[in-house]
Amino acid sequence: MDPNSCNMHSHCVHMEIHQVVPPPHKSTLHKLNVRLKETFFPDDPLRQFKGKSLKTKIILGAKYFFPILQWGSNYSFKLFKSDLVSGLTIASLAIPQGISYAKLANLPPIVGLYSSFVPPLIYAVLGSSRDLAVGPVSIASLVLGSMLRQEVSPSQEPVLFLQLALTSTFFAGLFQASLGILRLGFIIDFLSKAILIGFMAGAAIIVSLQQLKSLLGITHFTKEMGLVPVMSSVFHNIHESIRKPKLFWVSAGAPLMCVIISTLLCFAIKAQNHGISLIGKLHQGINPSSWNMLKFHGSHLGLVMKTGLITGILSLTEGIAVGRTFAALGNYKVDGNKEMMAIGFMNVVGSSTSCYVTTGAFSRSAVNNNAGAKTAASNIVMSVTVMVTLLFLMPLFQYTPNVVLGAIIVTAVIGLIDIPAACHIWKIDKFDFLVMLTAFLGVIFISVQEGLAIAVGLSTFRILLQITRPKTVMMGNIPGTDIYRNLHQYKDATRIPGFLILSIEAPINFANITYLNDRTLRWIEEEEEDNIKEHSSLRFLILDMSAVSAIDTSGISLFKELKATMEKKGVELVLVNPLAEVIEKLKKADESNTFIRADNLFLTVGEAVASLSSTMKSQSTTTEEAHTIVPHY
Amino acid sequence: MDPNSCNMHSHCVHMEIHQVVPPPHKSTLHKLNVRLKETFFPDDPLRQFKGKSLKTKIILGAKYFFPILQWGSNYSFKLFKSDLVSGLTIASLAIPQGISYAKLANLPPIVGLYSSFVPPLIYAVLGSSRDLAVGPVSIASLVLGSMLRQEVSPSQEPVLFLQLALTSTFFAGLFQASLGILRLGFIIDFLSKAILIGFMAGAAIIVSLQQLKSLLGITHFTKEMGLVPVMSSVFHNIHESIRKPKLFWVSAGAPLMCVIISTLLCFAIKAQNHGISLIGKLHQGINPSSWNMLKFHGSHLGLVMKTGLITGILSLTEGIAVGRTFAALGNYKVDGNKEMMAIGFMNVVGSSTSCYVTTGAFSRSAVNNNAGAKTAASNIVMSVTVMVTLLFLMPLFQYTPNVVLGAIIVTAVIGLIDIPAACHIWKIDKFDFLVMLTAFLGVIFISVQEGLAIAVGLSTFRILLQITRPKTVMMGNIPGTDIYRNLHQYKDATRIPGFLILSIEAPINFANITYLNDRTLRWIEEEEEDNIKEHSSLRFLILDMSAVSAIDTSGISLFKELKATMEKKGVELVLVNPLAEVIEKLKKADESNTFIRADNLFLTVGEAVASLSSTMKSQSTTTEEAHTIVPHY
Repeated sequence: MDPNSCNMHSHCVHMEIHQVVPPPHKSTLHKLNVRLKETFFPDDPLRQFKGKSLKTKIILGAKYFFPILQWGSNYSFKLFKSDLVSGLTIASLAIPQGISYAKLANLPPIVGLYSSFVPPLIYAVLGSSRDLAVGPVSIASLVLGSMLRQEVSPSQEPVLFLQLALTSTFFAGLFQASLGILRLGFIIDFLSKAILIGFMAGAAIIVSLQQLKSLLGITHFTKEMGLVPVMSSVFHNIHESIRKPKLFWVSAGAPLMCVIISTLLCFAIKAQNHGISLIGKLHQGINPSSWNMLKFHGSHLGLVMKTGLITGILSLTEGIAVGRTFAALGNYKVDGNKEMMAIGFMNVVGSSTSCYVTTGAFSRSAVNNNAGAKTAASNIVMSVTVMVTLLFLMPLFQYTPNVVLGAIIVTAVIGLIDIPAACHIWKIDKFDFLVMLTAFLGVIFISVQEGLAIAVGLSTFRILLQITRPKTVMMGNIPGTDIYRNLHQYKDATRIPGFLILSIEAPINFANITYLNDRTLRWIEEEEEDNIKEHSSLRFLILDMSAVSAIDTSGISLFKELKATMEKKGVELVLVNPLAEVIEKLKKADESNTFIRADNLFLTVGEAVASLSSTMKSQSTTTEEAHTIVPHY
Repeated sequence: MDPNSCNMHSHCVHMEIHQVVPPPHKSTLHKLNVRLKETFFPDDPLRQFKGKSLKTKIILGAKYFFPILQWGSNYSFKLFKSDLVSGLTIASLAIPQGISYAKLANLPPIVGLYSSFVPPLIYAVLGSSRDLAVGPVSIASLVLGSMLRQEVSPSQEPVLFLQLALTSTFFAGLFQASLGILRLGFIIDFLSKAILIGFMAGAAIIVSLQQLKSLLGITHFTKEMGLVPVMSSVFHNIHESIRKPKLFWVSAGAPLMCVIISTLLCFAIKAQNHGISLIGKLHQGINPSSWNMLKFHGSHLGLVMKTGLITGILSLTEGIAVGRTFAALGNYKVDGNKEMMAIGFMNVVGSSTSCYVTTGAFSRSAVNNNAGAKTAASNIVMSVTVMVTLLFLMPLFQYTPNVVLGAIIVTAVIGLIDIPAACHIWKIDKFDFLVMLTAFLGVIFISVQEGLAIAVGLSTFRILLQITRPKTVMMGNIPGTDIYRNLHQYKDATRIPGFLILSIEAPINFANITYLNDRTLRWIEEEEEDNIKEHSSLRFLILDMSAVSAIDTSGISLFKELKATMEKKGVELVLVNPLAEVIEKLKKADESNTFIRADNLFLTVGEAVASLSSTMKSQSTTTEEAHTIVPHY
């Protein structure tokens, strides 16, 4: 360093240039190991086993696979009292909703009850969420029903339709469990919240229109029509109830009360004589086995697998999201991959016991949580209640009017339309709003699977576009500091004559090197035009690499090319703060040390400018050319 | 700030906390405009028109679309002399290679000569590269031939095969021109260099094996076999010649010399009587029109469009890469989108004048450059030479043996196998090597289009994986500075007790919020375990956002969730240096200012630690709990 330049710095004696160093050498195998671990085991599930005795390991392992062992050993009467109340409460919701959602899926109503009996029992043993209330849900029911209807008519071939539904459930479970076992749970992350909001609103509108048709079909009993808005307003309170615990008992009991009152009413007035459609006789007894119903061959196998995949992803997304939401509220942890296995296994078993796709339902889980559920035992209570219903109470449903089921469905799905969330998305991120709108319109006007696929494609395309067209930002010095920031963002930041400081804000790879090359040259040209006006000249191009998280072989070639181009222009290329992976690869590619030298590699922009300025100044004392202003520290 | 803590800092009086500010407000429309411009017009092609008179604009516009106007107006006899020599040189290569490559594409040899006549003329008018030598190339010929052969046999239905080849050429041109006009040129960037190296090596092996079969088929003229290794070694010099200009004239003339010598030899010994396959009679005269040969209907349309797409992309990639390479060597500029339009238009016109897919060939362009080409006029000279050949010299080729064409093909494609480049890729980036290997094996064992698709899919998957599993890095203070860097990379960096400083190195969005949440909690847990041992406690989680280039609505929700979780743990969440887009969205989402406050938002990690340490210290004077060490500045 030229000592003459020293009086320009307030504490120049302290100035010291820090080296950029590559990270310690690791073998390829080690790196691969770390990368695989971060990709598939980011939560490090084996950490709890470290340094434990074999016996403890076995106990911990059993508790990992069967969380019931964990909470079961400390179970008390006090906990049971809470779980009993909440279990009965969600049962009162699960019974009418189960019947309704089965109808939504074009399945016999009793399948909805079957699905509220076996799966909750399995989840109680395997699941790690305390609040999840398991059973059929509206979205998966709708998707299952509408996808299978593409090839088979539920009214003309009801047995085949049921077989396909059960086989789809099997594939859904298999797929869900595989995601968990293979630790590919991140796949469901691609159904972003924006997509789900759009999708659910679109699905709600489709379902409502379908049900409205059947609701409007009742011509002889106009009084019944008035029930819809009334029940609507009552049921709507369910969603409010998460926020208003006072009205909660009223709203949680409302669907069952409506079913009871309307059934009594229909029984009293002999409604079938008035043209009102009733559920009719239901078979008494618990779930029959349905192994023999699963069809793994035939012309519908493709559709069945696709339906399983879509309903599997959708129901998994709902279950995991609900589990995570209540875990965060209750300050406990659910293991995503573990939950996937539990939900998947539950559906595989369900498919052989006459159950269709089930998962943790948002509305019922909220009620469960509000009613004071402490453990998964509330699912057992619910399950037993459903069992009692199946065994003894089925004749009572004979007079339940179908219209009340339609109303239950409509009120449940209308609650899925989340206008405030849509507004929030519009305010923060317009592209997310576009994705949401695509999912919404795609589901309504094209189909469930294509609407979802287009929306996922669009949001993935956005990520790729961010990489393909990374931001390059011109930086300036914040006066009185050695901090360099975006000139556009920080209006008081000032440029240093002779320097062009750019920050590249993305990994550099094959997809963006052409753009980065073009864009950098354009920065340089614009800079040179400015400099002609100001009679100064550009000497250094500083690239701040702090935000370049990765690089590939194409990225390396960009720097070589850029260096050659800059040399022809008489501009020196300087790199600042390349991160571990980047400096490692740059060093590997630059065996002869022509590219990465101490005088063009710095740890901070401040040190680079200070060091290069002093070099420039010492040169200019002879050439008397540059009038550089060095920032004060 | 607590003045008591001041004596810990060497120049505390200077310490000043700088605010993070959002960028100046811009309307959504303005942002969309900027984003679209950066996506589609990164090179800002209209810049040269700014502030010019209408007349100048028209002249500049004409020069933009017809670069011949630009160099044509200054054309001199001296330039012509250079172009004449280089044009004749590449013609001597283009004639034998044209015939050979047409054979590679299963087309009549004369189509190769037609394709070396019209397209170079069109490129000379529209193209902006001075060095590009236009004509048929081996890769596109191979792909065209092998893809069309999937449905039509070139030997049984030669006319239909030619029709499909010409129609594919039309679609290739249409697709290329569309990419240029719609400014979607970045699509070809997805064929990364690693993919091309693997793909070309695979293609070379397929072609060589094919040709070897026909070479080995010659049983009656064993002497001819010896020619292959000889010619191999001679032709191989072409690729060397770029580096060794001395041997250049020998190697550039070698293919033509071989054709002449072997033709004379075959004529002298009446080779057809010895069972040697000859080219046979060729039709004399220039390109016939082939509009009527284009088939836009029928059962092969799908294949033809797919073939057009793949050959279009491949030939475009080669042409653009060659153009860019020589432009960088010659320090001039080629406009990628403009070149795509030129190459596309050239192929559309070519398809109606009996030409198949053409582009800028790497080997001939290298020869062109070495032979001293100054402008695209060398293409005109070559074209005229080919025309003369077509009109007058066709009878001379009657006795050319097919085996010499096979040898020309083999030597050309063997040069495509680039072992040193493969080694270089292995050394720098193992994943790129995997992509290369996938392209190589996919092309050999599956098919051209699927091999390429899998390789592109794999490299895109890598980008998505980098986003889905972003790096989070723990940072420490570099002693004696206020610089914070990766603890793993900089071994002398030290941790600050009570602080966990993480840098997130990717945009935060729907695809990674689950991972980031899990990973951050794991960092915290590990930290808490360490702290228990050291009897200290974690007080602040500092997230350095310098490398978070973008955020979406899901990303915003991550911070809200993280803040809530941290509050339950008694840890304060502090953000450092959120970039323009990020701070803007965070502010929008946080209307009530509960989240983004002055005491948890800092411009640098150094300032955050200094400010928070002094707060902590002023608290600890009463509680006597923390023993914090504040770094010295």
